[in-house]
Amino acid sequence: MKTFTIIGTGLIGGSVARDIRKTGTDAHLIGVEQNADHAARALELQLVDAVLPLSEAVAQADVVLLAIPVTAIQQLLPQLLDLVPPQAVVIDFGSTKSLLCEAVKDHPKRAQFVAAHPIAGTENSGPEAALEGLYQGKMNIICEKEKSSEFALEVALELFDLLGLKTVFMQAEEHDKHVAYISHLSHVSSFLLGLTVLDVEKDEKNIFMLAGSGFASTVRLAKSSPDMWAPIFEQNAFFLSHALEEYIKHLQKFQECLQQKDTAQLYEMMRQANQIRPVLDGITQGASAK
Amino acid sequence: MKTFTIIGTGLIGGSVARDIRKTGTDAHLIGVEQNADHAARALELQLVDAVLPLSEAVAQADVVLLAIPVTAIQQLLPQLLDLVPPQAVVIDFGSTKSLLCEAVKDHPKRAQFVAAHPIAGTENSGPEAALEGLYQGKMNIICEKEKSSEFALEVALELFDLLGLKTVFMQAEEHDKHVAYISHLSHVSSFLLGLTVLDVEKDEKNIFMLAGSGFASTVRLAKSSPDMWAPIFEQNAFFLSHALEEYIKHLQKFQECLQQKDTAQLYEMMRQANQIRPVLDGITQGASAK
Repeated sequence: MKTFTIIGTGLIGGSVARDIRKTGTDAHLIGVEQNADHAARALELQLVDAVLPLSEAVAQADVVLLAIPVTAIQQLLPQLLDLVPPQAVVIDFGSTKSLLCEAVKDHPKRAQFVAAHPIAGTENSGPEAALEGLYQGKMNIICEKEKSSEFALEVALELFDLLGLKTVFMQAEEHDKHVAYISHLSHVSSFLLGLTVLDVEKDEKNIFMLAGSGFASTVRLAKSSPDMWAPIFEQNAFFLSHALEEYIKHLQKFQECLQQKDTAQLYEMMRQANQIRPVLDGITQGASAK
Repeated sequence: MKTFTIIGTGLIGGSVARDIRKTGTDAHLIGVEQNADHAARALELQLVDAVLPLSEAVAQADVVLLAIPVTAIQQLLPQLLDLVPPQAVVIDFGSTKSLLCEAVKDHPKRAQFVAAHPIAGTENSGPEAALEGLYQGKMNIICEKEKSSEFALEVALELFDLLGLKTVFMQAEEHDKHVAYISHLSHVSSFLLGLTVLDVEKDEKNIFMLAGSGFASTVRLAKSSPDMWAPIFEQNAFFLSHALEEYIKHLQKFQECLQQKDTAQLYEMMRQANQIRPVLDGITQGASAK
Protein backbone atom coordinates (compact mmCIF):
# COMPACT_ATOMS: atom_id res chain seq x y z
CA MET A 1 0.00 0.00 0.00
CA LYS A 2 1.28 3.43 -0.97
CA THR A 3 1.06 6.41 1.34
CA PHE A 4 0.34 9.77 -0.28
CA THR A 5 0.93 12.87 1.80
CA ILE A 6 -1.00 15.78 0.34
CA ILE A 7 0.12 19.17 1.57
CA GLY A 8 -2.84 21.47 1.00
CA THR A 9 -6.27 19.81 0.82
CA GLY A 10 -8.04 22.41 -1.35
CA LEU A 11 -9.18 22.37 -4.96
CA ILE A 12 -5.86 21.07 -6.34
CA GLY A 13 -4.81 18.57 -3.64
CA GLY A 14 -8.36 17.49 -2.84
CA SER A 15 -9.07 16.69 -6.50
CA VAL A 16 -5.98 14.45 -6.62
CA ALA A 17 -7.24 12.68 -3.48
CA ARG A 18 -10.68 12.12 -5.06
CA ASP A 19 -9.13 10.51 -8.15
CA ILE A 20 -6.85 8.24 -6.12
CA ARG A 21 -9.95 7.08 -4.17
CA LYS A 22 -12.00 6.67 -7.34
CA THR A 23 -9.52 4.38 -9.07
CA GLY A 24 -9.54 2.08 -6.06
CA THR A 25 -5.79 2.35 -5.75
CA ASP A 26 -4.76 0.78 -2.46
CA ALA A 27 -3.60 3.98 -0.85
CA HIS A 28 -3.35 5.67 2.49
CA LEU A 29 -4.03 9.39 2.17
CA ILE A 30 -2.60 11.82 4.72
CA GLY A 31 -3.40 15.52 4.63
CA VAL A 32 -1.27 18.38 5.93
CA GLU A 33 -3.42 21.47 6.35
CA GLN A 34 -2.78 24.70 8.24
CA ASN A 35 -6.35 25.93 7.99
CA ALA A 36 -8.30 24.12 10.75
CA ASP A 37 -11.67 24.50 8.97
CA HIS A 38 -10.23 23.05 5.77
CA ALA A 39 -8.65 20.20 7.74
CA ALA A 40 -11.99 19.32 9.36
CA ARG A 41 -13.81 19.59 6.03
CA ALA A 42 -11.23 17.43 4.20
CA LEU A 43 -11.76 14.69 6.80
CA GLU A 44 -15.56 15.00 6.67
CA LEU A 45 -15.48 14.74 2.88
CA GLN A 46 -13.11 11.76 3.25
CA LEU A 47 -10.60 13.37 0.94
CA VAL A 48 -7.92 12.11 3.36
CA ASP A 49 -7.77 9.40 6.03
CA ALA A 50 -5.94 11.58 8.53
CA VAL A 51 -4.59 15.09 8.97
CA LEU A 52 -1.16 15.11 10.61
CA PRO A 53 1.61 17.58 11.40
CA LEU A 54 4.11 18.01 8.57
CA SER A 55 7.07 16.01 9.90
CA GLU A 56 4.92 13.05 10.93
CA ALA A 57 3.04 13.07 7.64
CA VAL A 58 6.21 13.25 5.57
CA ALA A 59 8.01 10.51 7.54
CA GLN A 60 5.34 7.99 6.40
CA ALA A 61 5.11 9.11 2.80
CA ASP A 62 5.91 7.32 -0.44
CA VAL A 63 4.72 10.32 -2.39
CA VAL A 64 4.48 13.90 -1.11
CA LEU A 65 2.30 16.23 -3.14
CA LEU A 66 2.65 19.98 -2.72
CA ALA A 67 -0.65 21.71 -3.51
CA ILE A 68 -0.29 25.04 -1.71
CA PRO A 69 0.34 28.60 -2.96
CA VAL A 70 3.62 28.89 -4.89
CA THR A 71 5.38 31.19 -2.41
CA ALA A 72 4.61 28.66 0.32
CA ILE A 73 6.03 25.89 -1.89
CA GLN A 74 9.19 27.94 -2.43
CA GLN A 75 9.68 28.36 1.33
CA LEU A 76 8.76 24.84 2.34
CA LEU A 77 10.45 22.81 -0.39
CA PRO A 78 14.08 22.81 0.89
CA GLN A 79 12.98 21.91 4.42
CA LEU A 80 10.67 19.23 3.05
CA LEU A 81 13.49 17.59 1.10
CA ASP A 82 15.54 17.60 4.33
CA LEU A 83 12.72 15.66 6.05
CA VAL A 84 11.73 13.27 3.34
CA PRO A 85 12.63 9.52 3.55
CA PRO A 86 15.20 8.29 0.99
CA GLN A 87 12.69 6.43 -1.24
CA ALA A 88 9.95 9.06 -1.20
CA VAL A 89 9.18 11.29 -4.15
CA VAL A 90 8.13 14.93 -3.82
CA ILE A 91 5.95 16.47 -6.55
CA ASP A 92 4.72 20.03 -6.69
CA PHE A 93 1.69 21.24 -8.65
CA GLY A 94 2.58 24.95 -8.65
CA SER A 95 1.73 27.27 -11.56
CA THR A 96 5.21 28.85 -11.65
CA LYS A 97 8.39 26.86 -11.90
CA SER A 98 11.63 28.93 -12.06
CA LEU A 99 11.84 30.09 -8.43
CA LEU A 100 10.75 26.71 -7.09
CA CYS A 101 13.43 24.89 -9.07
CA GLU A 102 15.96 27.55 -8.08
CA ALA A 103 15.14 27.05 -4.38
CA VAL A 104 16.36 23.42 -4.41
CA LYS A 105 18.83 23.37 -7.31
CA ASP A 106 21.77 22.50 -5.03
CA HIS A 107 19.83 20.43 -2.52
CA PRO A 108 21.42 16.97 -1.97
CA LYS A 109 18.00 15.36 -2.45
CA ARG A 110 17.04 17.36 -5.57
CA ALA A 111 16.69 14.11 -7.55
CA GLN A 112 13.76 13.06 -5.36
CA PHE A 113 11.77 16.10 -6.52
CA VAL A 114 9.63 16.43 -9.67
CA ALA A 115 8.54 19.96 -10.66
CA ALA A 116 5.13 19.70 -12.34
CA HIS A 117 2.28 21.95 -13.46
CA PRO A 118 -0.99 20.34 -14.48
CA ILE A 119 -3.01 22.90 -16.47
CA ALA A 120 -6.26 22.39 -14.61
CA GLY A 121 -8.39 24.18 -12.10
CA THR A 122 -11.62 26.07 -11.58
CA GLU A 123 -12.43 29.48 -10.14
CA ASN A 124 -13.37 27.84 -6.83
CA SER A 125 -11.17 26.91 -3.87
CA GLY A 126 -11.03 24.90 -0.65
CA PRO A 127 -11.80 21.18 0.04
CA GLU A 128 -15.38 21.56 -1.18
CA ALA A 129 -14.15 22.69 -4.58
CA ALA A 130 -12.28 19.36 -5.07
CA LEU A 131 -13.59 17.53 -8.14
CA GLU A 132 -13.31 13.97 -9.39
CA GLY A 133 -11.80 13.96 -12.88
CA LEU A 134 -10.47 17.53 -12.71
CA TYR A 135 -7.23 16.45 -14.42
CA GLN A 136 -8.70 14.03 -16.96
CA GLY A 137 -7.38 14.77 -20.45
CA LYS A 138 -5.56 17.94 -19.36
CA MET A 139 -1.95 18.85 -20.15
CA ASN A 140 0.82 18.63 -17.57
CA ILE A 141 4.25 20.24 -17.81
CA ILE A 142 7.28 18.73 -16.06
CA CYS A 143 10.21 21.15 -15.80
CA GLU A 144 13.92 20.31 -15.51
CA LYS A 145 13.26 16.59 -15.80
CA GLU A 146 17.04 16.01 -16.09
CA LYS A 147 17.37 16.95 -12.40
CA SER A 148 14.84 14.33 -11.23
CA SER A 149 15.90 10.71 -10.81
CA GLU A 150 14.43 8.09 -13.15
CA PHE A 151 12.69 6.55 -10.17
CA ALA A 152 11.12 9.86 -9.15
CA LEU A 153 9.91 10.49 -12.72
CA GLU A 154 8.42 6.98 -12.90
CA VAL A 155 6.52 7.46 -9.66
CA ALA A 156 5.29 10.88 -10.78
CA LEU A 157 4.20 9.64 -14.21
CA GLU A 158 2.30 6.79 -12.59
CA LEU A 159 0.33 9.34 -10.59
CA PHE A 160 -0.18 11.56 -13.67
CA ASP A 161 -1.48 8.54 -15.62
CA LEU A 162 -3.92 7.77 -12.83
CA LEU A 163 -5.15 11.38 -13.02
CA GLY A 164 -5.47 11.20 -16.82
CA LEU A 165 -2.87 13.94 -17.43
CA LYS A 166 -0.84 14.17 -20.64
CA THR A 167 2.72 15.15 -19.80
CA VAL A 168 5.18 17.23 -21.82
CA PHE A 169 8.59 18.55 -20.79
CA MET A 170 9.92 22.10 -20.73
CA GLN A 171 12.61 24.20 -19.14
CA ALA A 172 11.39 26.23 -16.14
CA GLU A 173 11.98 29.68 -17.62
CA GLU A 174 10.37 28.76 -20.92
CA HIS A 175 7.37 27.43 -18.98
CA ASP A 176 7.01 30.60 -16.93
CA LYS A 177 7.21 32.84 -19.98
CA HIS A 178 4.52 30.98 -21.93
CA VAL A 179 2.11 30.60 -18.99
CA ALA A 180 2.47 34.33 -18.29
CA TYR A 181 0.78 34.99 -21.66
CA ILE A 182 -1.56 32.06 -21.93
CA SER A 183 -2.74 31.51 -18.36
CA HIS A 184 -1.70 34.33 -16.04
CA LEU A 185 -2.65 37.18 -18.40
CA SER A 186 -6.16 35.67 -18.80
CA HIS A 187 -6.56 35.81 -15.05
CA VAL A 188 -5.35 39.41 -14.82
CA SER A 189 -7.59 40.52 -17.69
CA SER A 190 -10.57 38.90 -16.00
CA PHE A 191 -9.81 40.16 -12.46
CA LEU A 192 -9.49 43.72 -13.75
CA LEU A 193 -12.53 43.53 -16.00
CA GLY A 194 -14.50 42.55 -12.90
CA LEU A 195 -12.93 45.30 -10.82
CA THR A 196 -13.45 47.98 -13.50
CA VAL A 197 -17.12 47.12 -13.90
CA LEU A 198 -17.66 47.01 -10.11
CA ASP A 199 -15.85 50.35 -9.69
CA VAL A 200 -17.90 52.10 -12.36
CA GLU A 201 -21.29 50.46 -11.89
CA LYS A 202 -21.92 51.48 -8.31
CA ASP A 203 -25.47 50.19 -8.66
CA GLU A 204 -25.00 46.44 -8.96
CA LYS A 205 -28.55 46.06 -10.21
CA ASN A 206 -27.33 47.33 -13.58
CA ILE A 207 -24.69 44.61 -13.75
CA PHE A 208 -27.32 42.08 -12.78
CA MET A 209 -29.70 43.32 -15.48
CA LEU A 210 -27.31 43.87 -18.34
CA ALA A 211 -24.80 41.05 -17.97
CA GLY A 212 -25.16 38.32 -20.54
CA SER A 213 -23.40 35.02 -21.02
CA GLY A 214 -20.47 36.86 -22.62
CA PHE A 215 -19.73 38.95 -19.54
CA ALA A 216 -20.17 35.92 -17.27
CA SER A 217 -17.68 33.90 -19.30
CA THR A 218 -15.08 36.67 -19.59
CA VAL A 219 -15.24 37.59 -15.92
CA ARG A 220 -15.41 34.03 -14.53
CA LEU A 221 -11.75 33.96 -13.48
CA ALA A 222 -12.25 37.15 -11.43
CA LYS A 223 -13.82 34.84 -8.85
CA SER A 224 -10.49 33.00 -8.39
CA SER A 225 -8.74 32.87 -5.02
CA PRO A 226 -6.30 35.73 -4.30
CA ASP A 227 -4.51 33.37 -1.87
CA MET A 228 -3.55 31.19 -4.80
CA TRP A 229 -3.07 33.88 -7.45
CA ALA A 230 -1.25 36.72 -5.65
CA PRO A 231 1.78 34.41 -5.08
CA ILE A 232 1.70 33.24 -8.72
CA PHE A 233 1.69 36.82 -9.97
CA GLU A 234 4.46 37.77 -7.52
CA GLN A 235 6.66 34.88 -8.65
CA ASN A 236 6.03 35.42 -12.33
CA ALA A 237 6.17 39.23 -12.13
CA PHE A 238 8.87 39.64 -14.76
CA PHE A 239 7.17 37.72 -17.56
CA LEU A 240 3.66 38.72 -16.53
CA SER A 241 4.61 42.38 -16.56
CA HIS A 242 5.82 42.00 -20.15
CA ALA A 243 2.62 40.21 -21.07
CA LEU A 244 0.55 42.98 -19.49
CA GLU A 245 2.53 45.61 -21.36
CA GLU A 246 1.74 43.91 -24.67
CA TYR A 247 -1.91 43.59 -23.72
CA ILE A 248 -2.15 47.26 -22.72
CA LYS A 249 -0.47 48.30 -26.01
CA HIS A 250 -3.05 46.32 -27.96
CA LEU A 251 -5.89 47.90 -25.95
CA GLN A 252 -4.47 51.38 -26.49
CA LYS A 253 -4.20 50.82 -30.22
CA PHE A 254 -7.82 49.65 -30.27
CA GLN A 255 -8.90 52.72 -28.28
CA GLU A 256 -7.10 55.03 -30.71
CA CYS A 257 -8.84 53.44 -33.68
CA LEU A 258 -12.12 53.79 -31.82
CA GLN A 259 -11.55 57.50 -31.19
CA GLN A 260 -10.46 58.08 -34.79
CA LYS A 261 -13.50 56.14 -36.06
CA ASP A 262 -11.11 53.88 -37.96
CA THR A 263 -13.61 51.04 -38.15
CA ALA A 264 -11.66 49.29 -40.92
CA GLN A 265 -8.71 48.85 -38.57
CA LEU A 266 -10.95 47.73 -35.68
CA TYR A 267 -12.45 45.19 -38.05
CA GLU A 268 -9.01 43.97 -39.07
CA MET A 269 -7.90 43.51 -35.43
CA MET A 270 -11.03 41.49 -34.67
CA ARG A 271 -10.59 39.41 -37.82
CA GLN A 272 -7.07 38.55 -36.68
CA ALA A 273 -8.27 37.75 -33.15
CA ASN A 274 -10.79 35.34 -34.71
CA GLN A 275 -7.79 33.12 -35.53
CA ILE A 276 -7.94 31.97 -31.92
CA ARG A 277 -10.95 29.84 -32.96
CA PRO A 278 -9.03 27.15 -34.91
CA VAL A 279 -6.37 27.13 -32.19
CA LEU A 280 -9.00 26.61 -29.48
CA ASP A 281 -10.81 24.04 -31.60
CA GLY A 282 -7.52 22.20 -31.82
CA ILE A 283 -7.31 22.41 -28.05
CA THR A 284 -10.80 21.01 -27.65
CA GLN A 285 -10.15 18.20 -30.11
CA GLY A 286 -6.90 17.46 -28.34
CA ALA A 287 -8.90 17.42 -25.11
CA SER A 288 -6.21 19.36 -23.30
CA ALA A 289 -8.81 21.78 -21.98
CA LYS A 290 -12.53 21.87 -21.63
CA MET B 1 -52.08 34.24 -39.30
CA LYS B 2 -49.36 36.71 -38.57
CA THR B 3 -46.58 37.47 -41.02
CA PHE B 4 -43.14 38.09 -39.54
CA THR B 5 -40.54 39.64 -41.80
CA ILE B 6 -37.08 38.95 -40.43
CA ILE B 7 -34.36 41.16 -41.88
CA GLY B 8 -31.13 39.24 -41.33
CA THR B 9 -31.44 35.46 -40.94
CA GLY B 10 -28.30 34.84 -38.86
CA LEU B 11 -27.80 33.96 -35.19
CA ILE B 12 -30.16 36.65 -33.87
CA GLY B 13 -32.96 36.61 -36.47
CA GLY B 14 -32.72 32.87 -37.09
CA SER B 15 -33.08 32.11 -33.37
CA VAL B 16 -36.28 34.19 -33.24
CA ALA B 17 -37.59 32.21 -36.23
CA ARG B 18 -36.82 28.90 -34.51
CA ASP B 19 -38.75 29.93 -31.39
CA ILE B 20 -41.77 31.13 -33.39
CA ARG B 21 -41.80 27.74 -35.16
CA LYS B 22 -41.34 25.84 -31.90
CA THR B 23 -44.31 27.40 -30.13
CA GLY B 24 -46.55 26.39 -33.03
CA THR B 25 -47.67 29.99 -33.48
CA ASP B 26 -49.59 30.20 -36.74
CA ALA B 27 -47.08 32.37 -38.54
CA HIS B 28 -45.72 33.03 -41.98
CA LEU B 29 -42.01 33.76 -41.83
CA ILE B 30 -40.35 35.82 -44.54
CA GLY B 31 -36.62 36.41 -44.60
CA VAL B 32 -34.75 39.34 -46.12
CA GLU B 33 -31.12 38.42 -46.63
CA GLN B 34 -28.40 40.10 -48.72
CA ASN B 35 -25.96 37.19 -48.40
CA ALA B 36 -27.04 34.60 -51.01
CA ASP B 37 -25.43 31.69 -49.14
CA HIS B 38 -27.16 32.67 -45.91
CA ALA B 39 -30.47 33.03 -47.78
CA ALA B 40 -30.15 29.52 -49.23
CA ARG B 41 -29.11 28.07 -45.86
CA ALA B 42 -31.98 29.81 -44.02
CA LEU B 43 -34.44 28.19 -46.47
CA GLU B 44 -32.79 24.76 -46.21
CA LEU B 45 -32.91 24.94 -42.42
CA GLN B 46 -36.58 26.07 -42.71
CA LEU B 47 -35.89 29.11 -40.57
CA VAL B 48 -38.11 31.03 -43.01
CA ASP B 49 -40.79 30.07 -45.54
CA ALA B 50 -39.50 32.44 -48.21
CA VAL B 51 -36.75 34.92 -48.88
CA LEU B 52 -38.03 38.04 -50.64
CA PRO B 53 -36.74 41.47 -51.67
CA LEU B 54 -37.13 44.10 -48.94
CA SER B 55 -40.12 46.09 -50.26
CA GLU B 56 -42.12 42.96 -51.06
CA ALA B 57 -41.33 41.37 -47.69
CA VAL B 58 -42.23 44.50 -45.76
CA ALA B 59 -45.49 45.09 -47.64
CA GLN B 60 -46.85 41.77 -46.30
CA ALA B 61 -45.57 42.13 -42.74
CA ASP B 62 -47.45 42.38 -39.45
CA VAL B 63 -44.12 42.46 -37.61
CA VAL B 64 -40.77 43.46 -39.08
CA LEU B 65 -37.72 42.38 -37.10
CA LEU B 66 -34.34 44.02 -37.72
CA ALA B 67 -31.54 41.59 -36.91
CA ILE B 68 -28.64 43.03 -38.90
CA PRO B 69 -25.50 44.95 -37.85
CA VAL B 70 -26.33 48.21 -36.05
CA THR B 71 -24.90 50.56 -38.72
CA ALA B 72 -27.09 48.80 -41.29
CA ILE B 73 -30.11 49.24 -38.98
CA GLN B 74 -29.31 52.94 -38.66
CA GLN B 75 -29.22 53.35 -42.44
CA LEU B 76 -32.22 51.18 -43.23
CA LEU B 77 -34.63 52.17 -40.46
CA PRO B 78 -35.98 55.50 -41.86
CA GLN B 79 -36.54 53.96 -45.29
CA LEU B 80 -38.17 50.92 -43.71
CA LEU B 81 -40.63 53.06 -41.77
CA ASP B 82 -41.49 54.81 -45.07
CA LEU B 83 -42.34 51.43 -46.61
CA VAL B 84 -44.12 49.77 -43.71
CA PRO B 85 -47.94 49.26 -43.78
CA PRO B 86 -49.92 51.32 -41.24
CA GLN B 87 -50.67 48.43 -38.84
CA ALA B 88 -47.23 46.82 -38.93
CA VAL B 89 -44.77 47.04 -36.06
CA VAL B 90 -41.00 47.36 -36.56
CA ILE B 91 -38.70 46.02 -33.83
CA ASP B 92 -34.92 46.17 -33.86
CA PHE B 93 -32.63 43.86 -31.85
CA GLY B 94 -29.48 46.02 -32.07
CA SER B 95 -26.92 46.22 -29.25
CA THR B 96 -26.70 50.03 -29.37
CA LYS B 97 -29.68 52.31 -29.13
CA SER B 98 -28.89 56.07 -29.19
CA LEU B 99 -28.04 56.49 -32.88
CA LEU B 100 -30.85 54.20 -33.99
CA CYS B 101 -33.43 56.15 -32.01
CA GLU B 102 -31.90 59.40 -33.22
CA ALA B 103 -32.22 58.27 -36.86
CA VAL B 104 -36.03 58.12 -36.67
CA LYS B 105 -36.84 60.56 -33.87
CA ASP B 106 -38.81 62.85 -36.18
CA HIS B 107 -40.14 60.18 -38.51
CA PRO B 108 -43.96 60.42 -38.93
CA LYS B 109 -44.21 56.67 -38.28
CA ARG B 110 -41.87 56.64 -35.22
CA ALA B 111 -44.71 55.25 -33.07
CA GLN B 112 -44.73 52.03 -35.10
CA PHE B 113 -41.13 51.33 -34.03
CA VAL B 114 -39.93 49.60 -30.83
CA ALA B 115 -36.21 49.89 -30.00
CA ALA B 116 -35.17 46.72 -28.18
CA HIS B 117 -32.00 44.93 -27.09
CA PRO B 118 -32.29 41.36 -25.88
CA ILE B 119 -29.10 40.50 -23.96
CA ALA B 120 -28.49 37.18 -25.66
CA GLY B 121 -26.12 35.71 -28.18
CA THR B 122 -23.23 33.35 -28.71
CA GLU B 123 -19.82 33.74 -30.29
CA ASN B 124 -21.12 32.09 -33.47
CA SER B 125 -22.88 33.67 -36.45
CA GLY B 126 -24.93 32.91 -39.56
CA PRO B 127 -28.14 30.83 -40.04
CA GLU B 128 -26.45 27.68 -38.73
CA ALA B 129 -25.72 29.42 -35.42
CA ALA B 130 -29.48 29.98 -34.83
CA LEU B 131 -30.62 28.26 -31.63
CA GLU B 132 -33.99 27.33 -30.21
CA GLY B 133 -34.40 28.91 -26.78
CA LEU B 134 -31.55 31.42 -27.16
CA TYR B 135 -33.68 34.14 -25.53
CA GLN B 136 -35.31 32.02 -22.81
CA GLY B 137 -34.97 33.72 -19.41
CA LYS B 138 -32.72 36.49 -20.72
CA MET B 139 -33.13 40.21 -20.11
CA ASN B 140 -34.43 42.59 -22.77
CA ILE B 141 -34.16 46.37 -22.75
CA ILE B 142 -36.71 48.58 -24.49
CA CYS B 143 -35.51 52.15 -25.00
CA GLU B 144 -37.64 55.28 -25.37
CA LYS B 145 -40.87 53.37 -24.86
CA GLU B 146 -42.76 56.68 -24.67
CA LYS B 147 -42.13 57.13 -28.40
CA SER B 148 -43.70 53.79 -29.35
CA SER B 149 -47.48 53.45 -29.61
CA GLU B 150 -49.31 51.27 -27.11
CA PHE B 151 -50.23 48.94 -29.93
CA ALA B 152 -46.60 48.62 -31.06
CA LEU B 153 -45.47 47.89 -27.48
CA GLU B 154 -48.19 45.26 -27.07
CA VAL B 155 -47.18 43.48 -30.27
CA ALA B 156 -43.50 43.63 -29.30
CA LEU B 157 -44.15 42.34 -25.76
CA GLU B 158 -46.19 39.47 -27.17
CA LEU B 159 -43.15 38.44 -29.23
CA PHE B 160 -40.80 38.93 -26.26
CA ASP B 161 -43.08 36.73 -24.10
CA LEU B 162 -43.02 34.03 -26.77
CA LEU B 163 -39.20 34.19 -26.72
CA GLY B 164 -39.12 34.02 -22.91
CA LEU B 165 -37.48 37.46 -22.55
CA LYS B 166 -37.89 39.60 -19.42
CA THR B 167 -38.28 43.23 -20.43
CA VAL B 168 -37.13 46.38 -18.61
CA PHE B 169 -37.18 49.97 -19.81
CA MET B 170 -34.36 52.49 -20.11
CA GLN B 171 -33.41 55.66 -21.92
CA ALA B 172 -31.19 55.10 -24.97
CA GLU B 173 -28.14 56.96 -23.70
CA GLU B 174 -28.29 55.29 -20.30
CA HIS B 175 -28.53 51.93 -22.05
CA ASP B 176 -25.51 52.63 -24.27
CA LYS B 177 -23.38 53.76 -21.34
CA HIS B 178 -24.07 50.70 -19.21
CA VAL B 179 -23.67 48.16 -22.02
CA ALA B 180 -20.34 49.79 -22.93
CA TYR B 181 -18.99 48.63 -19.57
CA ILE B 182 -20.87 45.43 -19.06
CA SER B 183 -21.09 43.93 -22.52
CA HIS B 184 -18.93 45.78 -25.04
CA LEU B 185 -15.84 46.04 -22.80
CA SER B 186 -15.95 42.26 -22.20
CA HIS B 187 -15.83 41.73 -25.94
CA VAL B 188 -12.92 44.14 -26.41
CA SER B 189 -10.95 42.60 -23.51
CA SER B 190 -11.46 39.15 -25.01
CA PHE B 191 -10.70 40.12 -28.64
CA LEU B 192 -7.44 41.77 -27.55
CA LEU B 193 -6.44 38.98 -25.18
CA GLY B 194 -6.77 36.62 -28.15
CA LEU B 195 -4.85 38.96 -30.44
CA THR B 196 -2.06 39.58 -27.89
CA VAL B 197 -1.52 35.87 -27.30
CA LEU B 198 -1.57 35.12 -31.05
CA ASP B 199 0.87 37.99 -31.73
CA VAL B 200 3.34 36.86 -29.08
CA GLU B 201 3.02 33.09 -29.32
CA LYS B 202 4.07 32.67 -32.94
CA ASP B 203 4.15 28.92 -32.37
CA GLU B 204 0.51 28.03 -31.89
CA LYS B 205 1.48 24.64 -30.49
CA ASN B 206 2.35 26.42 -27.25
CA ILE B 207 -1.14 27.91 -27.03
CA PHE B 208 -2.59 24.50 -27.76
CA MET B 209 -0.47 22.88 -25.03
CA LEU B 210 -0.72 25.47 -22.31
CA ALA B 211 -4.26 26.77 -22.63
CA GLY B 212 -6.58 25.58 -19.91
CA SER B 213 -10.26 26.08 -19.31
CA GLY B 214 -9.54 29.56 -17.92
CA PHE B 215 -7.98 30.82 -21.14
CA ALA B 216 -10.74 29.22 -23.23
CA SER B 217 -13.44 30.92 -21.17
CA THR B 218 -11.79 34.34 -21.12
CA VAL B 219 -11.00 34.33 -24.84
CA ARG B 220 -14.30 32.82 -26.03
CA LEU B 221 -15.73 36.14 -27.20
CA ALA B 222 -12.66 36.72 -29.41
CA LYS B 223 -14.34 34.29 -31.80
CA SER B 224 -17.28 36.70 -32.29
CA SER B 225 -18.16 38.11 -35.71
CA PRO B 226 -16.39 41.38 -36.67
CA ASP B 227 -19.33 42.06 -39.04
CA MET B 228 -21.59 42.33 -36.01
CA TRP B 229 -19.16 43.90 -33.55
CA ALA B 230 -17.26 46.52 -35.57
CA PRO B 231 -20.52 48.48 -36.12
CA ILE B 232 -21.44 48.18 -32.42
CA PHE B 233 -18.05 49.51 -31.35
CA GLU B 234 -18.26 52.31 -33.95
CA GLN B 235 -21.71 53.37 -32.75
CA ASN B 236 -20.84 53.20 -29.07
CA ALA B 237 -17.33 54.67 -29.50
CA PHE B 238 -17.82 57.46 -26.99
CA PHE B 239 -18.90 55.36 -24.02
CA LEU B 240 -16.74 52.39 -24.98
CA SER B 241 -13.67 54.58 -25.19
CA HIS B 242 -14.32 55.76 -21.63
CA ALA B 243 -14.80 52.18 -20.50
CA LEU B 244 -11.53 51.16 -22.16
CA GLU B 245 -9.73 54.05 -20.51
CA GLU B 246 -10.90 52.88 -17.08
CA TYR B 247 -9.92 49.31 -17.88
CA ILE B 248 -6.44 50.36 -19.08
CA LYS B 249 -5.97 52.46 -15.91
CA HIS B 250 -6.80 49.45 -13.76
CA LEU B 251 -4.39 47.26 -15.73
CA GLN B 252 -1.62 49.87 -15.44
CA LYS B 253 -2.11 50.12 -11.70
CA PHE B 254 -1.90 46.35 -11.46
CA GLN B 255 1.26 46.31 -13.56
CA GLU B 256 2.86 48.96 -11.33
CA CYS B 257 2.12 46.93 -8.21
CA LEU B 258 3.56 43.90 -9.96
CA GLN B 259 6.79 45.71 -10.80
CA GLN B 260 7.06 47.14 -7.29
CA LYS B 261 6.39 43.69 -5.80
CA ASP B 262 3.50 45.20 -3.87
CA THR B 263 1.77 41.86 -3.42
CA ALA B 264 -0.47 43.21 -0.64
CA GLN B 265 -2.02 45.67 -3.08
CA LEU B 266 -2.37 43.03 -5.82
CA TYR B 267 -4.11 40.84 -3.25
CA GLU B 268 -6.46 43.67 -2.31
CA MET B 269 -7.39 44.35 -5.96
CA MET B 270 -8.20 40.68 -6.49
CA ARG B 271 -10.18 40.50 -3.27
CA GLN B 272 -12.30 43.42 -4.48
CA ALA B 273 -12.72 41.81 -7.91
CA ASN B 274 -14.02 38.68 -6.13
CA GLN B 275 -17.12 40.73 -5.30
CA ILE B 276 -18.28 39.99 -8.83
CA ARG B 277 -19.15 36.49 -7.56
CA PRO B 278 -22.26 37.41 -5.54
CA VAL B 279 -23.33 39.74 -8.34
CA LEU B 280 -22.99 36.95 -10.93
CA ASP B 281 -24.64 34.45 -8.59
CA GLY B 282 -27.53 36.88 -8.38
CA ILE B 283 -27.57 36.95 -12.15
CA THR B 284 -27.68 33.18 -12.33
CA GLN B 285 -30.39 32.93 -9.71
CA GLY B 286 -32.34 35.62 -11.48
CA ALA B 287 -31.87 33.61 -14.69
CA SER B 288 -31.15 36.78 -16.62
CA ALA B 289 -28.09 35.14 -18.16
CA LYS B 290 -26.68 31.67 -18.50
